[in-house]
Order: sequence, then structure tokens, then C-alpha cells
Amino acid sequence: MAEIKPYSMCWLEYTDLNKYRDKYRRIFGNIVVLGDNSLNLPLKELRDFLTYSLGIKPKIFRNTFANTSNFVLIGKLSDVRKVLKGLDEFEFSLGEEGFLIKKVEFGENSILILTAKEYVGLIYGVFKLIEKLKLGEDIDKINFLSNPSLKFRILNHWDNLDGSVERGYAGNSIFFKDNKIIINDRTKDYARLLSSIGINGIVINNVNVKKKEVELLTIPYLKKLKELAKIFSAYGIKIYLSINFASPIYLGGLNTADPLDKRVSLWWKTKVDEIYEYIPDFGGFLVKADSEFNPGPHMYGRTHADGANMLGEALEPYGGFVIWRAFVYNCLQDWRDVKTDRAKAAYDNFKPLDGKFMDNVIVQIKYGPMDFQVREPVNPLFGGLEQTNQILELQITQEYTGQQIHLCYLGVLWKEILEFDTYAKGKGSEVKEILKGSVFKIKNNGMAGVSNVGDNINWTGHDLAQANLYTFGELAWNPDEKIEKIVERWIKLTFGDDEKVVENISYMLLNSHKAYEKYTTPLGLGWMVNPGHHYGPNPEGYEYSKWGTYHRANYEAIGVDRSSRGTGYTLQYHSPWREIYDSIDTCPEELLLFFHRVPYNYRLKSGKTLLQTYYDLHFEGVEEAEEIRRRWIELKGKIDDKTYERVLQRLNMQVEHAKEWRDVINTYFFRRTGIPDEKGRKIYP
Amino acid sequence: MAEIKPYSMCWLEYTDLNKYRDKYRRIFGNIVVLGDNSLNLPLKELRDFLTYSLGIKPKIFRNTFANTSNFVLIGKLSDVRKVLKGLDEFEFSLGEEGFLIKKVEFGENSILILTAKEYVGLIYGVFKLIEKLKLGEDIDKINFLSNPSLKFRILNHWDNLDGSVERGYAGNSIFFKDNKIIINDRTKDYARLLSSIGINGIVINNVNVKKKEVELLTIPYLKKLKELAKIFSAYGIKIYLSINFASPIYLGGLNTADPLDKRVSLWWKTKVDEIYEYIPDFGGFLVKADSEFNPGPHMYGRTHADGANMLGEALEPYGGFVIWRAFVYNCLQDWRDVKTDRAKAAYDNFKPLDGKFMDNVIVQIKYGPMDFQVREPVNPLFGGLEQTNQILELQITQEYTGQQIHLCYLGVLWKEILEFDTYAKGKGSEVKEILKGSVFKIKNNGMAGVSNVGDNINWTGHDLAQANLYTFGELAWNPDEKIEKIVERWIKLTFGDDEKVVENISYMLLNSHKAYEKYTTPLGLGWMVNPGHHYGPNPEGYEYSKWGTYHRANYEAIGVDRSSRGTGYTLQYHSPWREIYDSIDTCPEELLLFFHRVPYNYRLKSGKTLLQTYYDLHFEGVEEAEEIRRRWIELKGKIDDKTYERVLQRLNMQVEHAKEWRDVINTYFFRRTGIPDEKGRKIYP
Repeated sequence: MAEIKPYSMCWLEYTDLNKYRDKYRRIFGNIVVLGDNSLNLPLKELRDFLTYSLGIKPKIFRNTFANTSNFVLIGKLSDVRKVLKGLDEFEFSLGEEGFLIKKVEFGENSILILTAKEYVGLIYGVFKLIEKLKLGEDIDKINFLSNPSLKFRILNHWDNLDGSVERGYAGNSIFFKDNKIIINDRTKDYARLLSSIGINGIVINNVNVKKKEVELLTIPYLKKLKELAKIFSAYGIKIYLSINFASPIYLGGLNTADPLDKRVSLWWKTKVDEIYEYIPDFGGFLVKADSEFNPGPHMYGRTHADGANMLGEALEPYGGFVIWRAFVYNCLQDWRDVKTDRAKAAYDNFKPLDGKFMDNVIVQIKYGPMDFQVREPVNPLFGGLEQTNQILELQITQEYTGQQIHLCYLGVLWKEILEFDTYAKGKGSEVKEILKGSVFKIKNNGMAGVSNVGDNINWTGHDLAQANLYTFGELAWNPDEKIEKIVERWIKLTFGDDEKVVENISYMLLNSHKAYEKYTTPLGLGWMVNPGHHYGPNPEGYEYSKWGTYHRANYEAIGVDRSSRGTGYTLQYHSPWREIYDSIDTCPEELLLFFHRVPYNYRLKSGKTLLQTYYDLHFEGVEEAEEIRRRWIELKGKIDDKTYERVLQRLNMQVEHAKEWRDVINTYFFRRTGIPDEKGRKIYP
Repeated sequence: MAEIKPYSMCWLEYTDLNKYRDKYRRIFGNIVVLGDNSLNLPLKELRDFLTYSLGIKPKIFRNTFANTSNFVLIGKLSDVRKVLKGLDEFEFSLGEEGFLIKKVEFGENSILILTAKEYVGLIYGVFKLIEKLKLGEDIDKINFLSNPSLKFRILNHWDNLDGSVERGYAGNSIFFKDNKIIINDRTKDYARLLSSIGINGIVINNVNVKKKEVELLTIPYLKKLKELAKIFSAYGIKIYLSINFASPIYLGGLNTADPLDKRVSLWWKTKVDEIYEYIPDFGGFLVKADSEFNPGPHMYGRTHADGANMLGEALEPYGGFVIWRAFVYNCLQDWRDVKTDRAKAAYDNFKPLDGKFMDNVIVQIKYGPMDFQVREPVNPLFGGLEQTNQILELQITQEYTGQQIHLCYLGVLWKEILEFDTYAKGKGSEVKEILKGSVFKIKNNGMAGVSNVGDNINWTGHDLAQANLYTFGELAWNPDEKIEKIVERWIKLTFGDDEKVVENISYMLLNSHKAYEKYTTPLGLGWMVNPGHHYGPNPEGYEYSKWGTYHRANYEAIGVDRSSRGTGYTLQYHSPWREIYDSIDTCPEELLLFFHRVPYNYRLKSGKTLLQTYYDLHFEGVEEAEEIRRRWIELKGKIDDKTYERVLQRLNMQVEHAKEWRDVINTYFFRRTGIPDEKGRKIYP
């Protein structure tokens, strides 16, 4: 029996798969390892799984076939090719991180080959192999080659040294406590979880780097980071750090952080030298500069390119990268100022810098132009930047989407974003193609997800929020995959393959984002949340704030005119989106209130008024939340009791809080207009 | 020269008063002390003042007149009467805490007597004498007897052990830091400041007693509290502690805090015994129970009287008191529930308990039924409770009144509250008369003020906010005094007697509350603040919250109907208020929106609509804030530079933030109605 851990292992849990034993025992009774001890880790992963889940205790052979018949063969491609023919093509088709799982017949015997060009591919490959076994897939004729489509597949942890997690809803940090770095069993298991979904980088500290966190760059912390990095490195994951742009002042005692000041660049070079002494495969820096009170090059009259390239030069000799966030806007806006439009800020700031960044600098861009609302248009920097490396930033943690109290499966939203065609070079310029490097010939692209992980027993607060983490990894590896497939796989890996379980949880996940959108702020409105913590409705909570987030509702209309007749935000898009978004008649209705100011009595394509549509969507949203809960309740007895109860409790809260949303938003519009619901449903006065 | 302290001594500062030297030197050259060393403290206060401010170094004579001619005589009345005749009447007219300052001719010589029945009276008396000298008052024929009108004159510190101060706007706690009790020079100087305005009690910790603060009742803390108490005791001030009602669980290991459980009452008795061992003149407990998530007797199905009396019994043998807050309401209200009215809660909770509290239990009642808004009606418990000791709770710290960034002198508001005639026993039943004990024959009454003090250099953040602290003490001693007198005295003591200084600062103080009210939420509206921190405008910030604070504005009207046709809150008042408040026609307009739901087009007595009135008041309020600033700028050169600049900076912020209030509130109403300002002034769309 595998040891019982005090936390869930999610989709990697060693469930009892005795039913597949006979199917796999023929081949998996023997494992041949080609290569030295460096392959022990993938070997151990496979052996543990076989032992604990399938009850197969394989014999291990090192660098020999003698006395074996059917077997699994694990080794680097260069080693495998020495003993097996017919694998030439894979020299070309396998990428640096890719792997091959292939069945070959060898005389009377069957061999299952797991191979890759590099060690890291074997790690990814062994987890994929385990996944396939766990799913009971047929491997008799398997010939499965997989390379990641995106180069950077990174998690951003917004963890602080004191153990708190900004926008964290799953307990405290798994990395930090009381200003110390934590390394324990869970550290390694986290590396395993991430590796199994193809993640190859983690930024371990919050992008808001406060005074204490600046010290992460000092030797006492570097010593401990070295240990941490080793654990992740073994699983193919590089460590990155968020840095404070003013570190040369805080740590170096300089009186400036001006990127063009020689003392500053020298300080960074020396610091980077030091970091790589401790962490030879250090990934690089993530930088939030000139954004929400974080210092940056603007303070010295320099550009983001000046700042990023200065760091890029320091990292370049080591192959490190600078990831520079595009989340830059005026966070001290005056609500009375109707000309400034926060939505335009990222593009306005970064488009002029296109082509000015070094090759090891990547601009990290939030999916939408605002801040992870339940629905935003795709950020026009995608398709706007043609000569700049790009990372798509998504938020796995559900800051504005229910904070892991609500079930809100984000995969469907992410998929829509990835498949949004920017028309940057005509049709076929989808975001995912840009990230793959196939639209513009730039290759250092990828996806970053703000982690939803904490030290809760289930890692993610809501058990079903594990699906968001899993999906992020899977999409970053292969953005072309159908979301329904990913969902089905995750459910089977996590809860087994009972048909009803798969059917109901699929329904729950695939319909949850739409439901959440309906009962909160549909039609692209957004921002009607409580300020600060961002949970629950507050229709005018951000209306007079400094954050640039206004709907400006009055007695007859709501929304900001972002068309060419308004703030001109639509002009940041390529045709035909520019024209489509610009007209209230052609704008997709799901984004109507993002792009237009709309009278309450405006009639949508359905023939219903905006007001009545808003009422209807809110009543529907609650009904859908109830249906989602009903589907879970149907699974009682098919899910282990503790998990069942934990999820049910959250679903109960979700229904209750969905009603709160419905009633507050409906009342808000009713009070504005005095017009009741056409169907006579209850709207509180 | 007096030592230079790193903080202001406010109205006690030893300013140079050389100009009065000749006037006072004749008498103050000699001081005769009757009595033992226990009189050293008032003696030292007088001598230091004479030395540092007047340049008079008096000769001190102990228990002898020999070799003296003109002199000041300090001693207890019983001692003074042994050597001087004609003082019999004062045996009757002097109260326990009162004092007498009286000039008598003694042959050719003049004697100024400072006497009191008790030591504490001599302390209060010496500070009053110093005040008179500082003001240059004529003492040639002085015959000044003063007794405090109210028995309890207490400051409530909302200080936490970690050094933070809930609703504190003047830095960190002067009592606590890093979970330790601080005792330093400032401690004694704080005692002097409070004693000089007649304060006789301080509750040193926050009414919200969290886990750490529960430990204040344990021996390590009691040992340190003993030291602290001694310092305050010397100045006539008793120490009180806020307690957590569940302490027997947290500290005693019991599984209940049920006040009728013998183990619980025994635990408290034992704990009280222990406290008095360390602090023989301990004042007692302040309790926030069953209020805003603090535990209390309701958890066990018991009444507030059960809870308070149980503690009262433990304290009774030592002469200690229980101060039990009436701030009890449902803080988890559903905004959809229009029947529950938070305004009614205190009365509904405590009126039925009238007469059921022990004599050493005092109910502490916030001035209004809600929570320290800039304007509320007087709490109907005043006049409602006929057989219960009462303390009027005021907030000196400016939580909802500008947080010491805005100048908002609260003395004018407090004075109106004290002079509000409840008509409980017909005309003449003013709040102040109830507190004096002259309406109902209950005597253990008083005033409590939530402190505005922190470790800032000027104690109160805004230098002029010192006036609020001073005024609180003076009104608690004598609620009959004219507010203009108190203001004038405070200005002269703090800034000297330059005519322009007195005129302008008087103007500033006396007009500031009215100005603040106008540019924030006039006509009794309140609650349009940012949730949580309570600074700045947010018209619907509390509209859908759990806190019971709603205005329910819609397209045509605003406000809650609290009349007999609405929630019935008006019925908690005695006639004629009940009828006056009940009718929109007779309700004082300053409270119109507190009591009534009023259409925007309703015409006020001025003939203007509610909407236009709201616009007008907001434009006026900003103009008044600007005028207040102008008056300060006129004093440049007459106020020391540092103070001048510090205050100017805050006045600049006040004007800017007043404009923010004006514009947000006007826009809010404009968006609701679409009706512009009649006078065409700028209202943002």
C-alpha cells in the first residue's frame, strides 16, 4: 500500500485499478532501463504506480534485455536507438521536451518504449503513460508522440513570505511561512503534480514584491532556494522569482534604480551571477513594474524596454529570461475623468515598444484589457505585438469568479480566448497560433496561470477547482485539445470512470462558468463586486474609485462607450473586430456592455430589452446553479463521503450567494428604472 | 527651562507667560503645604508651571506659616479648616471630587487657598488653577468652587495589544506594542493631560477583545497593569479593562461562559479577586457582548442583565463597576428584509431590562441609534431607561467624521445631544439632566468618549483635533458650559491669546461640523461611506451589506420610513418627539432622511426640492471648507511654523476630499434623476 498522505494527490492519487491488472501485467511485469541513475526518478514514478494501483511488482533490468521477454523500455532516444532500429524519424519529430510512447513487436515479445531526447521528456512521458494506464487505455498498438505546443508553461504564485497568499482561497502558502521557505513532503508532491500536467516553470513569490520579499535575493534565502530548485528541477520545472525593480536601492544601498545607470545594471549583473551560483538552472525574473504602486523604469523617465532589457542583459549569459507584465495602467484615475480608459492602457503602453525588447524578454499579458473579469474581450496586444515574445496570463485562482466557493470551471473561457482569431495576419491568427509562434516568427511564448493552490487538504479549496489547475497545464501543453476531452480525462483520473459520475461532473464543469456569468455581471459588464476582497455583489462598489473601473449607470443607460465615438478602445483591434465591436448592432452580445453604453430599453436580438434580459439572465443563472448542485447530489454514494460533503457544502453556499447576486443586481436595476420584471418574478424593492 | 519633549503637551504646554509674572508673583512666591508627602504631586505641578512659564521659583513651606506673608495654601479641607476659619459651608458644597480655589485676606497678607475634601480634588484643582493662571485670569477676588456634574468621565481606548488602534488616526497605541504594555514618560504625561480635563477613568483596551487581548487578565499582564494603574491613580484616574465574555472558556478552560453556571460566576469572582490584589483601585469591566460577533449571554439563552449582574456581583465587594454596552443589533441582516430596523435595536434590547441591573452595572449607550454618523437623532434609550445607570458614549476619534484628516470639531454636536430634551418627565428632561441624575434618581451615570489619541507627535493626528479631546473632558465635568467658552479657552491655552488667532480658530472649530455635514450626507442620511475603513464617499457602499444600514434610494425617493407607518422607530420616543418625528412636515429637516422616505421632488420649508437642497448643501459645504482653510492661512506667522504647516496640509486635503464628496454625491443624485442643478453648476455626468 502507498503511504496515506494527509492531503489529496488529485489526479495522481493511487486509486485501486485492480480491474486493469490482467490487461497490463504482460508488459509491465518487466522494466528495462537504458541509462544511468539519472533515470531513477521516472522509473520510481512508474514502479510506484504499478505497485500501488495495479498490484504489479515489476522486475527491473538495467541496461540489459537478458532474461526478459515482454517489457517496458525506458531510456533516452540516443540510447534506445542503439538497441532498436526503425526509430530514425523521431530524431526529427521529437522536440526538446517531447516524448514518445510506442509499442513495438520484438520477435515474439512486446516492448513498450518510453523515450525522449532529454531527461525532462522522460518525466513528462512517464506521467502521461501513467495517465493512460489509469484511464485503462488500450496500449496494444500505441504510437503516441507528444511535444508541447508552447515553450513557457508557468505558474505564478502570489505567495508572500509571511505565508499569506494574495488572492489565495485554499489556505496558506505551501512555500512560505513566518518569513521562512518551507520544504517538506508536499514540496515534492507539488512538483509531481505540476510535472504531470507539463508545467515547466513556477514563480514562487507574489508579483507585488514588498519589503520583506525583496530579501529573497539575498544569500540566506538563496541557500534555501537552491534546495527548493533542486526538487523542482528533478521534475523539469524551473524556479523563477518575482523581483522588485527598486531592489538596487533596498538591497544594494544605491540611491537609484534607473536602468540606464551603470551602477544599477552592474548591481543586477552581480546579483544574477550570485543567483546562478546557487541555482544553475534558475528560470529568471517576473517583474510587475510601474504598476499599482510598484516601482519601475518610468520613475526615471525610462521605458519598459529600458528596464526589461537591462535585466535581460544580466540574465542572458545564463539563458535566463525576463518576464515583464503588461498590466500597466493609471491606478489613480479620477472617476470624473471620462477620457482616460483603463482598457486602453496595456496596448497604449506596450504597442509602441514592439520590437524593442531583447530576445530573452517576454511580455506577460492578461487575457483581457482589465483584470480577470468573468468576461472581457481578448487583450488587443495579442495580434497587436508582432515582434515581441508573449505570455498569456490567466488566473487559475478565482479572484473575480467565485473564490473557490463557487464552482466556476474556467477551461471553457480559456479555450475561447485561445481560439479567438485576432486577424493580425488575416484569418487563422488565433491567440493560440500567436503563442505557438506560427503567426509571427517569435518563439519564446507561453502561458502563465496565477496559481489556485494553498495548503488546504485538497490544494485548491474547492475540490472541483483542481480541474482548473489540471486544465491550465493541459491547455498550455496543447491548446488545440478539445475542452470536453480534458474535462472527461480529469474526472476519470480524479473520480474514476463511473458513467454517471463522468456525465454529471462534466455537466457541472462545462456549465458553471456560464451560470456564474449569468448571475453576476453578464453581457460584459463586470466590476460590480465588493471592493478590496472582490467577493459578492456591490453594484457601485467601484464606481467612484481610483481604479478606472466604471459603468456610469444612470436613470436611462449603463456602460462605457469604448467605440470609435467614445474612448476609441475598439481601434486597438484589427479588422474585422474593430468594426464588429464598434457597432452596437454587430458587437457580440456577451460583450455588449463592455464596448457600448446601452439604454435599459434597448432591444437585443432576442427582441427583449436590456433590462428584461438582465432580469432573465439572473433568474436563469440561479436556476443553473441549482441544477449544478442537483447533479452533484445525484452522485451521493459514488463519490467518497468526505469529498462529497466538502463539495456539497460549497455548492450550497454557491446557490445561496448566487441568489444574493441575483437579488442585488436585479434590485439595482429595478431601483434605477422602476420597471418590474415582465414575468412578475420577485424583485426586492 | 522645562525639558523639551518629543511630543506636544497640548493645552498643558509650558508657554512663556512672563507677561503675567508681575501679576502673580506677590502670592505665588510662597507655597504652604498642609499635609504629608501625598500632596507632593499637585505641589510639583504648580511649582513646575510657576517656574517654567512664569519664571517664579516659589519657596515651599510644609505645615507652617512661619516666615511667610502672602502665599498659596494647599491642603485638604479638613486640614485647612484647622488653621483658617469661615470655611464651614464648603463641607456641604464640596463633593468628593470637587475643589475650591479661594482668595482670603489674612491680616495684611493675601492667601490663595486650594483645597478639596479628597486628594483627587486637589489634583483637579491644581490643574484648574494652572489653567486660570495660563489664561491670565484675575485671582484677586477668586472664589471658585467646582464639582463635576457627572460621576463617570471615561475614555475608551480601542487599542490592541499589537499596538494597532481600531479606528485610530493618530499613529499607534500609546499603551501597547508587540503584545507588551508600554510604560514611559508619555504614560505619565498622558495621565496629566487627562487629569487636567477631569477624566477619572480609562479603559485601555479595545471593546473588541480578541484572543490575545483576553490574556490581559492573566498574571504576567496584571503585574504590568499594576504599574500602569499606579501612574494613572496618582492623577485620580482609574484603569478599566474591556473583557471578552467568553474568558472563562479561553482562560479558565471551562466549556461554557453561561452567566448562570456556578462554575462561570466562580471563575469570574476568583479572577476579580486576583485583579484587585494587583490593582486595588481597579475601575471595572467594559463589556461588548452579543454584539458584532463578540460572545455574550444570548449564546446561552440568558439576558444582558444576567450577564452583567453576574460580573457585577464579582466586582461589588471591591466597589468596581460593570459598564455594559447597549450597541447590540443584528449585524447579519438581510438587506431584503425591510422590517428589521437597526435603529430600533438598542431600545428593543434594553428597555425590557430596565430596573433589572445591579446598582454597580451601567449601560453605556451610543449617542444615536446607529453608529456615530455625522448626524443622528438622540438614542431613545435616553429617557427610555428610568431605573438603569447610564453612560453616554461619544466618539472623539473621527471614524465617520473625517478621521482627523478633516477638521470636524465635535463639541457643537455633543452639546446639542446633551441639551436634547427627552421629555421623559416632561420639559426639562435633557440628556445632561438624566446623566446628572436629576431626572431619574439614579446616580452612577456619566460620559465615555472613544479616544482619538495615538503616538503621533501631537497625540491626535490633526493638531486641532486636540480640541475634541479637551472638550470631551470639559463637557463631562460640566455639560452646562457654553461650547463657545470651551473653544475660546482651549485656543488660548494652546495657541495663546492673540485676538485674530482666537477669532479665526473659533470660527474654524465652530463651523467645521456643519461644513462636514453639508458636503457629506446632510439631512440625516449618513452611511454613504466606503465600507470597512469608513473614509470617503461611496453612496451604495453599505446598501446591500449585512450591517442594517440602508437608504434604499430608487429613481424617485430616498430614505427609510421610520415613522409609525414604517418601521415604528419614532414610537420609541416620548411625546412630543414621537409626533414631531413622525410627520414629514414637523420633523426637523436636519433629520428628515433619517426618519422619512422622501421623494427627490419633495419641497422643503425653503421651497426648494430635496434634490436641489442636496446639490446646494454640497456646494456650500465645499465653500465652507475653503473658508475654514482661508481663516487658517490668515494666521500664518501667528502660529509656530511646524504646526501651521501640519494643519495646512490637512486643510488642503480636506478641501480636496470635500470636493470629492460633493462631486460623488451630486453625481449620484444626478444619475438617479437626470435633473441638473438649477444654478447650472458643474455636476459630473
